[in-house]
Amino acid sequence: MQIESIYHQPYDQYAFSIDDKTYRLRIRTKKGDCTEIIFYFGDPFKFNDSGWQIESSLSMYLAFSTELFDYWEVNVIPPNKRMKYQFLLKNEQESLFYGEGGFSSNFTPNDQSNCFTLPFLHKNNLISPPSWVHDTIWYQIFPDRFASGNNKNNPINSTPWGSTLPTSSSYFGGDLEGVIQKIDYLKNLGISGIYLTPIFEANSNHKYNTINYFRIDPTFGDEKVLKTLIEKCHEKNIRVMLDAVFNHTSASFPPFQDALQNGKESAFFEWFHFFKDEQNNSAYETFSFVKEMPKLNTENKEVQNFLLEIGSYWIKEFNIDGWRLDVANEIDHYFWKLFHKKMKELKKDLFIVGEIWHHAMPWLRGDEFDSVMNYPLMKSLFAYFGYQSISKIQFQYSINDLIAQYPLPVIKALFNVLGSHDTPRILTQCNHNEKRVILLYVFLFTFFGTPCIYYGDEIGLQGGNDPECRSCMLWDKSQYNLSIFNSIKKLILIRKKYPVLENDGEFNWVQTDQPDIVMYERKNNQYHFFIIINNSSEKQSVQVPINLRKKRITNVWNGEQFATESDSIGVDLLDTDFLILQIEDTDSFT
Amino acid sequence: MQIESIYHQPYDQYAFSIDDKTYRLRIRTKKGDCTEIIFYFGDPFKFNDSGWQIESSLSMYLAFSTELFDYWEVNVIPPNKRMKYQFLLKNEQESLFYGEGGFSSNFTPNDQSNCFTLPFLHKNNLISPPSWVHDTIWYQIFPDRFASGNNKNNPINSTPWGSTLPTSSSYFGGDLEGVIQKIDYLKNLGISGIYLTPIFEANSNHKYNTINYFRIDPTFGDEKVLKTLIEKCHEKNIRVMLDAVFNHTSASFPPFQDALQNGKESAFFEWFHFFKDEQNNSAYETFSFVKEMPKLNTENKEVQNFLLEIGSYWIKEFNIDGWRLDVANEIDHYFWKLFHKKMKELKKDLFIVGEIWHHAMPWLRGDEFDSVMNYPLMKSLFAYFGYQSISKIQFQYSINDLIAQYPLPVIKALFNVLGSHDTPRILTQCNHNEKRVILLYVFLFTFFGTPCIYYGDEIGLQGGNDPECRSCMLWDKSQYNLSIFNSIKKLILIRKKYPVLENDGEFNWVQTDQPDIVMYERKNNQYHFFIIINNSSEKQSVQVPINLRKKRITNVWNGEQFATESDSIGVDLLDTDFLILQIEDTDSFT
Repeated sequence: MQIESIYHQPYDQYAFSIDDKTYRLRIRTKKGDCTEIIFYFGDPFKFNDSGWQIESSLSMYLAFSTELFDYWEVNVIPPNKRMKYQFLLKNEQESLFYGEGGFSSNFTPNDQSNCFTLPFLHKNNLISPPSWVHDTIWYQIFPDRFASGNNKNNPINSTPWGSTLPTSSSYFGGDLEGVIQKIDYLKNLGISGIYLTPIFEANSNHKYNTINYFRIDPTFGDEKVLKTLIEKCHEKNIRVMLDAVFNHTSASFPPFQDALQNGKESAFFEWFHFFKDEQNNSAYETFSFVKEMPKLNTENKEVQNFLLEIGSYWIKEFNIDGWRLDVANEIDHYFWKLFHKKMKELKKDLFIVGEIWHHAMPWLRGDEFDSVMNYPLMKSLFAYFGYQSISKIQFQYSINDLIAQYPLPVIKALFNVLGSHDTPRILTQCNHNEKRVILLYVFLFTFFGTPCIYYGDEIGLQGGNDPECRSCMLWDKSQYNLSIFNSIKKLILIRKKYPVLENDGEFNWVQTDQPDIVMYERKNNQYHFFIIINNSSEKQSVQVPINLRKKRITNVWNGEQFATESDSIGVDLLDTDFLILQIEDTDSFT
Repeated sequence: MQIESIYHQPYDQYAFSIDDKTYRLRIRTKKGDCTEIIFYFGDPFKFNDSGWQIESSLSMYLAFSTELFDYWEVNVIPPNKRMKYQFLLKNEQESLFYGEGGFSSNFTPNDQSNCFTLPFLHKNNLISPPSWVHDTIWYQIFPDRFASGNNKNNPINSTPWGSTLPTSSSYFGGDLEGVIQKIDYLKNLGISGIYLTPIFEANSNHKYNTINYFRIDPTFGDEKVLKTLIEKCHEKNIRVMLDAVFNHTSASFPPFQDALQNGKESAFFEWFHFFKDEQNNSAYETFSFVKEMPKLNTENKEVQNFLLEIGSYWIKEFNIDGWRLDVANEIDHYFWKLFHKKMKELKKDLFIVGEIWHHAMPWLRGDEFDSVMNYPLMKSLFAYFGYQSISKIQFQYSINDLIAQYPLPVIKALFNVLGSHDTPRILTQCNHNEKRVILLYVFLFTFFGTPCIYYGDEIGLQGGNDPECRSCMLWDKSQYNLSIFNSIKKLILIRKKYPVLENDGEFNWVQTDQPDIVMYERKNNQYHFFIIINNSSEKQSVQVPINLRKKRITNVWNGEQFATESDSIGVDLLDTDFLILQIEDTDSFT
């Protein structure tokens, strides 16, 4: 056994609670190295005459594998919410105990000193994002480009709607009134959450450089319009999430101007990170190297209170449902813990999503963010379905690597995107192949997480990186890519109809030898689905390993039924095609 | 290269800041697998025409090894407090890049997508225990057994001082006045911190079952006596740490009695964890299975406020310097974060030590505890110096495993014990071999951490597990084990004289082939020490690998000097003996 590969820690993604009674334990081993793993556990305080005793054991199951590793899991309900435990790893050659004290080839289940400890399962240490995100379909709106509902508030020199491609400095006059007018459009599409990129006063089209955090940018509308927007959304069961830019401000933010002009005399000098550069000139930390975006000193108590006040104000006065946090990784953990505590006290089921592009476990322990923008998933999905630049097995490993990175409650709340204002348009990335775009959405809408559509992707808007990916929404239905639009709409309907496809079911790969046929199941006690995707450019016949006896199989995508009595079914898939098969016991139709 | 063994994560013990500019990065590889590791890093936002570019590289050094792994480290000061980085691992056969994206055998230093990210170094995310603990020598007092200063407050039926061995229910009348009277004794021993086990009102001799958290137990004294004790200690630069028992109370704690009697009608019902057992009888969670110790519900806001109020009260009114937290692992993280924030606001340099016997990284990230009681170190030290049950190399690996477990700032503040009220007496564990006891202290006082002596261990008190390890302190000097007493006193003097032996110096093993000769150095820019311990029961001659040219070598234990001009020195050690050699450049004596 390659013992150096074996990894467990009694926290984070290796030990987490999935409800207020149950721990899920995970252990990593070298791929193919173990044939069986037994989980031994007992109450830390139960002794008998022979000393401390293991009370129980459970067989772990091989949950998933990556290129290098097998991950084994088991669910455990310790009788008194606490336990000590160790693992017995087995293969044909050897048996090895593994615990906090290391490895032992002796049979030592009762060696307490070798055990890991989970001291007590507390409800408030559960990672518990608001449950409503588990069945929300998000829609990201870049307000200047989504819809103009009121021409009177258009920025001076704004360009007529859709008349040209955007530049980094162009304005098109989109606004909140425009969003209000399109709520029915969104509702019809199946959207249940809107994420608005920043709407506070700022002198840019993207508004990621805030001047006044307490004021709606006048070119977008005013407080009254936002209130109406949120009320109307809530009436239609659509949640609204705003974008908080707390890492930095605009250089025109009055406190920054004060600090810049008055230096150490300014009451706001400590609000920023001023320092002397190598030439002894006054300088200040910024977002990236953008002088227009001075970095806020979030270690300063006044800044903390100021930002907490902003966070609270829009919840209390406008009843927003979520905060998306810009450049969230560059702000200190201490501040985010304050923020989490304060915001959740105000609104228990507020959704907090950080913009973090890399591995984010330290922010996702339940006391900072509920979720992060899941760019790593996007990268995997594009590599496989978009560019076909990785093999099926590489794709599956990359998804499994993602699952291995976080506790399951985090995975179920990840903000899954196929694009945003910071990435090229999905159809452009797919080289204008709309069928590939649809496959991407098939996976997105049949996988864990809380998926988000970037405005216009649903109608096939095109464009490369910023500013191209921020062009005006088209409202002339004749210009829609209806194939994409109708597919997304139907996929959303299916996802909403069957929560098992959302976060209420297991996700398991189903192996098949065909290189570009991806097959996976979603299932729970009630429902069972097989999703089959043909990622090749060839028509393929696939044997589906489902025993059909007493089963009814329905492709919920088109209603087609497979009711033959046999041991399995063969199905034909066109190139770049898919099936969403529901498997039902015919017994249940009597 | 065995890539499954390679491990890094951009947080916790693998990436931490050691000051407000510098990160220490650590990576784990299979032992002996790599010959060189290069650390590549660059600003996340610096792009040139060819895209993102690595700006710098550094050679990592092999910091230490364990049985299975090598740990490589490097200190990095990223110019803008942020960086993306990856590792290039090399041996004679291959070179491999390793980053968040995995492994690549291509030369890809500029592949940003493969990099780990450290987004921004914030001061308030530094792990920074109070600096005074780095040179504190602690002394743990179990008040009923340390000294009786006032016979009037003796418990009824208390046993005459030292007349018998203690039972679990005996009282001997020790009190706070007794501690006051012995401050000079402690000062003379070299103590600079006192840790008092619980002193609040409770109906037991150990008082780990609090009845009134706002009152000194009357058999120990009153608030006035505690105030005097703390003032007198502070006059002599001795810090005082109290013991907070927040996991559970006494069953006689009035709110518990109220809840027990009035059930759901009680205002305190939610303060505890009541439930129905399998026979549908009312039951409640306890510490261990001790009905006398009902577990507090620290998820309840009122309980949180109550406990925070206790924590604050003794700081504000009595100016205590530390809180030792009983059964700290069984209380929720959320509460400890509240506690940390509130206590540090009241007293920035308060020391917070959790009682956790197992791996404790989740509590030591800088926002819960500064330290934990370091029982794992004790276990290693006893196994080697006490019982000789492990080999030298196993001992060294166990110490290195400990160092690998935590960020260095944590290691420097660990509360290092060789015994407590919960373990057998050190001399008893060493089978009455006082020379072994002294070796244990030699290591303790020349290693990282903040060491603590359990009252009486310094004079050779004996006894097995509780209650035997809680016998009365002897105040008749003729009964002291003077060999132990004088050695500890001298070791403390040496430790205090040379902060390099405390936490102001590196710790490195020095290899020697002799099986029971342990050699390590402590050094910084100014000082250099070699500690040599003969853990065998035989006299041994040791060749010390120090080039003596222009050096002066002094055994600071006895003043003996080695001034010969040669390439190394040979020294003789008696059985179970040691040397503490200071190496000085003779140049510095001109």
